[in-house]
Amino acid sequence: MTEVVKYRPEPDELSYTFGGREPVRRVRPGTILELYTEDCFGGRVRGVDDLPSRVCEFPYLNPVTGPIHIEGAEPGDTLAVHFVAIEPARDWAVSTTFPHFGALTGTHATATLHPPLDEVVWRYDVDVAAGTVTYRARRGDFTVELPLDPMHGTVGVAPGAFEARMTITPDAHGGNMDTPELRTGVTAYFGVNVPGALFALGDGHCRQGHGEVCGTAVEAAMNTTIVVDVIKGAGTPWPRLESDDALMCTGSARPLEDAYRISQHDLVTWTAELVGLDQLDAYQLISQAGEAPVGNVCDPNYTMVAKVAKRYLGGASTYEGTHARLRQIARDYLTHR
Amino acid sequence: MTEVVKYRPEPDELSYTFGGREPVRRVRPGTILELYTEDCFGGRVRGVDDLPSRVCEFPYLNPVTGPIHIEGAEPGDTLAVHFVAIEPARDWAVSTTFPHFGALTGTHATATLHPPLDEVVWRYDVDVAAGTVTYRARRGDFTVELPLDPMHGTVGVAPGAFEARMTITPDAHGGNMDTPELRTGVTAYFGVNVPGALFALGDGHCRQGHGEVCGTAVEAAMNTTIVVDVIKGAGTPWPRLESDDALMCTGSARPLEDAYRISQHDLVTWTAELVGLDQLDAYQLISQAGEAPVGNVCDPNYTMVAKVAKRYLGGASTYEGTHARLRQIARDYLTHR
Amino acid sequence: MTEVVKYRPEPDELSYTFGGREPVRRVRPGTILELYTEDCFGGRVRGVDDLPSRVCEFPYLNPVTGPIHIEGAEPGDTLAVHFVAIEPARDWAVSTTFPHFGALTGTHATATLHPPLDEVVWRYDVDVAAGTVTYRARRGDFTVELPLDPMHGTVGVAPGAFEARMTITPDAHGGNMDTPELRTGVTAYFGVNVPGALFALGDGHCRQGHGEVCGTAVEAAMNTTIVVDVIKGAGTPWPRLESDDALMCTGSARPLEDAYRISQHDLVTWTAELVGLDQLDAYQLISQAGEAPVGNVCDPNYTMVAKVAKRYLGGASTYEGTHARLRQIARDYLTHR
Amino acid sequence: MTEVVKYRPEPDELSYTFGGREPVRRVRPGTILELYTEDCFGGRVRGVDDLPSRVCEFPYLNPVTGPIHIEGAEPGDTLAVHFVAIEPARDWAVSTTFPHFGALTGTHATATLHPPLDEVVWRYDVDVAAGTVTYRARRGDFTVELPLDPMHGTVGVAPGAFEARMTITPDAHGGNMDTPELRTGVTAYFGVNVPGALFALGDGHCRQGHGEVCGTAVEAAMNTTIVVDVIKGAGTPWPRLESDDALMCTGSARPLEDAYRISQHDLVTWTAELVGLDQLDAYQLISQAGEAPVGNVCDPNYTMVAKVAKRYLGGASTYEGTHARLRQIARDYLTHR
Repeated sequence: MTEVVKYRPEPDELSYTFGGREPVRRVRPGTILELYTEDCFGGRVRGVDDLPSRVCEFPYLNPVTGPIHIEGAEPGDTLAVHFVAIEPARDWAVSTTFPHFGALTGTHATATLHPPLDEVVWRYDVDVAAGTVTYRARRGDFTVELPLDPMHGTVGVAPGAFEARMTITPDAHGGNMDTPELRTGVTAYFGVNVPGALFALGDGHCRQGHGEVCGTAVEAAMNTTIVVDVIKGAGTPWPRLESDDALMCTGSARPLEDAYRISQHDLVTWTAELVGLDQLDAYQLISQAGEAPVGNVCDPNYTMVAKVAKRYLGGASTYEGTHARLRQIARDYLTHR
Repeated sequence: MTEVVKYRPEPDELSYTFGGREPVRRVRPGTILELYTEDCFGGRVRGVDDLPSRVCEFPYLNPVTGPIHIEGAEPGDTLAVHFVAIEPARDWAVSTTFPHFGALTGTHATATLHPPLDEVVWRYDVDVAAGTVTYRARRGDFTVELPLDPMHGTVGVAPGAFEARMTITPDAHGGNMDTPELRTGVTAYFGVNVPGALFALGDGHCRQGHGEVCGTAVEAAMNTTIVVDVIKGAGTPWPRLESDDALMCTGSARPLEDAYRISQHDLVTWTAELVGLDQLDAYQLISQAGEAPVGNVCDPNYTMVAKVAKRYLGGASTYEGTHARLRQIARDYLTHR
Repeated sequence: MTEVVKYRPEPDELSYTFGGREPVRRVRPGTILELYTEDCFGGRVRGVDDLPSRVCEFPYLNPVTGPIHIEGAEPGDTLAVHFVAIEPARDWAVSTTFPHFGALTGTHATATLHPPLDEVVWRYDVDVAAGTVTYRARRGDFTVELPLDPMHGTVGVAPGAFEARMTITPDAHGGNMDTPELRTGVTAYFGVNVPGALFALGDGHCRQGHGEVCGTAVEAAMNTTIVVDVIKGAGTPWPRLESDDALMCTGSARPLEDAYRISQHDLVTWTAELVGLDQLDAYQLISQAGEAPVGNVCDPNYTMVAKVAKRYLGGASTYEGTHARLRQIARDYLTHR
Repeated sequence: MTEVVKYRPEPDELSYTFGGREPVRRVRPGTILELYTEDCFGGRVRGVDDLPSRVCEFPYLNPVTGPIHIEGAEPGDTLAVHFVAIEPARDWAVSTTFPHFGALTGTHATATLHPPLDEVVWRYDVDVAAGTVTYRARRGDFTVELPLDPMHGTVGVAPGAFEARMTITPDAHGGNMDTPELRTGVTAYFGVNVPGALFALGDGHCRQGHGEVCGTAVEAAMNTTIVVDVIKGAGTPWPRLESDDALMCTGSARPLEDAYRISQHDLVTWTAELVGLDQLDAYQLISQAGEAPVGNVCDPNYTMVAKVAKRYLGGASTYEGTHARLRQIARDYLTHR
């Protein structure tokens, strides 16, 4: 029987780093976890008057639920996390501009002499049954329904080299990658850097555009169900994703072309290995068959995803069939809950 | 009656710049042009032994057909080019690595002390009826069919400021943007910089992955039909694309985040104008509804596309309904040819 | 006897591109040229009320004097230009901010939603005898004398590949490199791309900080004397500079690290060749002995210089002793004028 | 009387992060510290056969001595560290290439398909009395003496936001900035993020070129004497340096232009505050009078320094005269030791 662990963190249990924290739970591979995650504002932005720079306090931003210690995970292994369900916990969500954060503004790194853009909050209605979120202009009466497409912006494990990193920064350990590809039905793979892997997740989005250009998505608390597994002795240099149809590699860096290079390099290398191709043959195949969904172009590192449809890879199998196995566990769970 | 002009350039009529050339034809707005374009190698790479560094000679690379003078087009106007049909002219196509060119190699700009990667040619079978191109590994026997999805890598007008630019460089005048979004059924818009606009196109691809990571796509000569039009007094800061379903803005720059910024900035600004939104309201809407298809990450400037579905913009109309009008001309032409 | 050619362009003779223009003069190698160059504003900004966006008109910015055809210069040769004297032509100079131009502002490429910073003009007194320029704050009474250190921001030859480039853009042909290293006593080397080389120069600066952070230097018209020479059969991939004490290589690109890479790569390669070192040995030597003066971080391409003292290179000689030879011609000329 | 604390860490006391470690010593402001620092290889690369990838083990690279808890330092204060003396501890030093590290090679971030460049070690003779280090080519007999100019590549305090960062990464807390400007006679200022500041330093260089282009400098163990102080209530956004003649601000980021922007932005802002200038007036002054010494172009973040001579700032005083005060303590100490 699959074990199910439920966990809703108290406010003071939330974590703001990957690494540097004791685990909040210890589970065995194969466990299903029903987790509650707060939104990136810690739930403090509830209406258009709740300016984040006033109601939130640095560094208590972008809280994650965890870390979870997965038994038996050791450095050199790969942690697999399958997303069974990502469900908005409230019937509203918010998005905002934030001073000196976002792609179309001067920032702390792209330092300019401009004062910040106006800080504005947008509140969305979330209708899970209809599968929509509703955008409303703040200065005018334009309104439009957009498809609900829940995802997690922030997922990852403890980094190596004794590091602890703010949850807002994506890097080789995962973190705030902010890619819409991380949705229900996807398995994420992370190289394990410390005993127990110390997985955590947060920053749910009801939906997100490519690049999260203003710096925030349709931010929401989530009830999220995952199932975790460990692939012993399998390395994963950067976080990878697998859906029923596609393989994906991520890269997080600046400038954006380096995020692209990292992700495409990993996809080329992985394709060569999975299909048994020469590296340049794999380079050619990905050059014509590959996609490059943009993750974020606003966080301390930018994130790109390199993606290829499995059907172009001749039926190659990854990580000993982990995705199919976890997918089946998810199906059984969803049938019986 | 729509006028139809057919033009197949002689080898010595091919152009290697945007700007700095006399027009090869003069046509009126509304004219349909049936054009032949050579591939980016000038048709000299025909098999796996035709290494481009040996059979091609710089700067005679990436030839374009044109320039075409469109009567009445003046600086400050916008040229509209609707792609009626893009049809491979041969039953084969090629792709190659090229010394110090591509995203996963040291290049002339990202200068390293590495010797170049191996120069390798891949030859694809092109089956228009089946709608496929066939990839074959060079070092092994792996083979796979990929969907045919013809596009033009290089389209544009003469730049302003008395410039002439190599066809390989994309910038505000268009050029080698290498975006798969430039396919049949799409209307491209360019700001006019010189009298007659001086439009040219080339670099057909049977298909291309996102970013053209190895530096070349499935390169092919094309028989391409376009219809051109001029929108008087309408400015277009960077090339824009319109399909039946979506609006797109392009940006070409380095680093890649600046290409992203330019394209998203133009889409935010254009959305505000089309929908009658405040700029920050448009910023928010695009942040959640926008896409960011990668063009190229290998050319002298990188290209990003910012894209939004028209259905999220409340039925706003662009350029006085030009796309719909040209689409109708295309339909009539295709019905009767 | 050294031939001396004097040339002061009429306003309508000024050039705004490298390439695409007929030469204004033809001279033999060894000729001394006494040239007048206008400032980057075409002399139209004369006081604090002359806002450049009002008194200047795009693309009539950053005019250069030339092009000069040097007889016998052919593609594959190197043009040497020794700077005998760079002398401010007026007793004042100006600097300004300019809308969306500079390193600490959103720009057309680093596109943001910020309105431009204030456009402000500063007027400097230039005292050649005292060797100073005087800065005066616009909003307050702070004033300070800075050393006069005249240089040319823009020097170069016609680019290859049939291109014509705005004078504001630096690239492999030279252009608007904006490096303070280009001062009196320096010899600049350019690879020749077209018959006659077609050299031009402009954009005199009474002095400039590293990076030209606000986008403009202490801009001045100049009376500049150069002597030109041609080194047959010697290639120069990117502009190089030589002073009595140092060798320098330039690189112009975005992002800034690519400008650094290009310039350091050329210096490493050149050092290996001049000293007879293995490439990695030269890499190591430059790593410890090399300097990296910043040129500009505001133009369409950024410019870095890689520099090494000649005394660390064991007395290696460059370009057949051209610098020493031109230096002697300069000395003779200065003695007798 | 000035208190003097001597500390030479045992190998197992070395630290590999900023943050996440208990202090090794607690001292009062005004204390002189005589510290021993190991080289970046932990002293394991002693000759040309000691390839770092073989004798060193990740993440035990770039060890620092510390952290030192300075009593009374609280978040919101500034820590001042004056460098009294930086003296090579051995009569030899080493430099190396390292696989996929350096500016002219593909790296883990600028991911390419190239195999690494050759891994080579160079051993330098260090002659403190003569003030030289001797470079010897590995493949040939070229040799040259370069001036000894000791500096520390890595200095900093614990970061905020609960982070622990590898010593190899420079950021707002300091770290591996690798700027030659950090030499004897200089005072470094750091914003304090945690109680006690937790200062550490290491990575001594006998000298370093600009940008540390091959990835390593002339690496050496050092006997270094510092004196520390705390300026209460004074913020410092990024590490700053002060010599007798100049003020300097640092920025560490990618791409390199962002490191430039951060450093110049801080220098403009600081200048405005110190001199009482309007921000745009300070922008103009730094644009003409400022320098931009390159730190590193090889580490996980690149580092630029923005520098201005004090004589251009009208005698403005910084941090309540801390530099002059610590300089006097240093002089007294050096006179009497």
